[in-house]
Amino acid sequence: MITLFELAGAEDARRFSPAVWRVRMALRHKGLAFEGRPWRFMEKEAIAPSGGATVPVIIDGGKWVRESFAIAEYLEDHYPDRPSLFGSPQGRALGRFMLAWVDRTLAFPVARLILTDIFACLAETDRDYFRQSREKRFGVALEQVCPDPDAELANIRTLLEPVRRLAAAQDFMGGAEPGFADYALYGTFMWARMTSGRLTLAEDDPLRAWLARVDALFDAEGPKALEAAGMSGR
Amino acid sequence: MITLFELAGAEDARRFSPAVWRVRMALRHKGLAFEGRPWRFMEKEAIAPSGGATVPVIIDGGKWVRESFAIAEYLEDHYPDRPSLFGSPQGRALGRFMLAWVDRTLAFPVARLILTDIFACLAETDRDYFRQSREKRFGVALEQVCPDPDAELANIRTLLEPVRRLAAAQDFMGGAEPGFADYALYGTFMWARMTSGRLTLAEDDPLRAWLARVDALFDAEGPKALEAAGMSGR
Repeated sequence: MITLFELAGAEDARRFSPAVWRVRMALRHKGLAFEGRPWRFMEKEAIAPSGGATVPVIIDGGKWVRESFAIAEYLEDHYPDRPSLFGSPQGRALGRFMLAWVDRTLAFPVARLILTDIFACLAETDRDYFRQSREKRFGVALEQVCPDPDAELANIRTLLEPVRRLAAAQDFMGGAEPGFADYALYGTFMWARMTSGRLTLAEDDPLRAWLARVDALFDAEGPKALEAAGMSGR
Repeated sequence: MITLFELAGAEDARRFSPAVWRVRMALRHKGLAFEGRPWRFMEKEAIAPSGGATVPVIIDGGKWVRESFAIAEYLEDHYPDRPSLFGSPQGRALGRFMLAWVDRTLAFPVARLILTDIFACLAETDRDYFRQSREKRFGVALEQVCPDPDAELANIRTLLEPVRRLAAAQDFMGGAEPGFADYALYGTFMWARMTSGRLTLAEDDPLRAWLARVDALFDAEGPKALEAAGMSGR
């Protein structure tokens, strides 16, 4: 049984880390049994054997692995008989590129949009750390990070254009079948939906149909988690 | 014999369109015989049967096809016995995503950096059109588009981070073998190198080794074209 450390808010059920969601979906894709263990920012010692201070972290048969892409590669290479997360060498590259694009292009704007909503979801023990680290990162008080949410949402919708083109051309990011590239992007939507209602898509956005397709995977893993956290996801 | 219309500057040998370079490399990858026909912005009538007013355009056995990704898909689907441009369904998605990323993220900053150098390369007949269309696009005079080239170059180097990660992890964008995703990015470098010396990479940038690998393909297609146009490419 694999253990997955999952960042949680005040309630255990509010598991909102985008990077952890990539791994949760990857584990489900592989059909591997795992236990999700709620974790908070201040519990750095609990994951110290991973060599880092952030989640996702998994323990598999005593082996610790951290960071979402490294975990995906670990799962792919150690469980080759299970459904592939990449499908081909190009699929592995697509996953890597998607993740880099999400990290470099999408993560900061979405963080700005939902930052105060995330803060409101946090365990009391995590709030000082979160405020201090994020105010240092963004250079202003949490409440001043996003003075114009409508403009930020419009900016994010524009930034989504490259993945919108993929969604318009095919069912999943890599083609007809879901894979890690989908989960790399899906994590960002789960992050927002678990904490906030602000990241919405236009009615005619092809990404809506893509999101519904990923939502439907694995017995509706995402929507069920949103429901357990009291979020509608829309 | 396929015909490829290629945007040229004052000299026929200065073929600088990034989108045409994607197709030239794709044709070489497929091992297909073709004739490159120099074309200028003002020769819209010559390519009117394609249904558009921009290159790349190919004619293959009387059939006109336009736009670099559509041409790549056409070549892939009509010449399946030749080396694959995509390698897998995920590779096709990677090519599509890379192209969308190049168009949306990289094209405008690189255009700003090299715009006056491009202008200096143009045929006399194209200069008025280019100045008017680009000044409309950027909202200022050509000479004012890039007031701080050093800052723009630094910005571009930062924007390259997602593809830098791919280049650091593997020889080509899609893995061990070159494909359309490489040519989608390579076109941007050829555009800059055919017209300008401004788009440089840091000495320790993993993209330098990637660029050298793509340069070496097809009997050094890129470097030979640079030499023919009197450009060093470095």
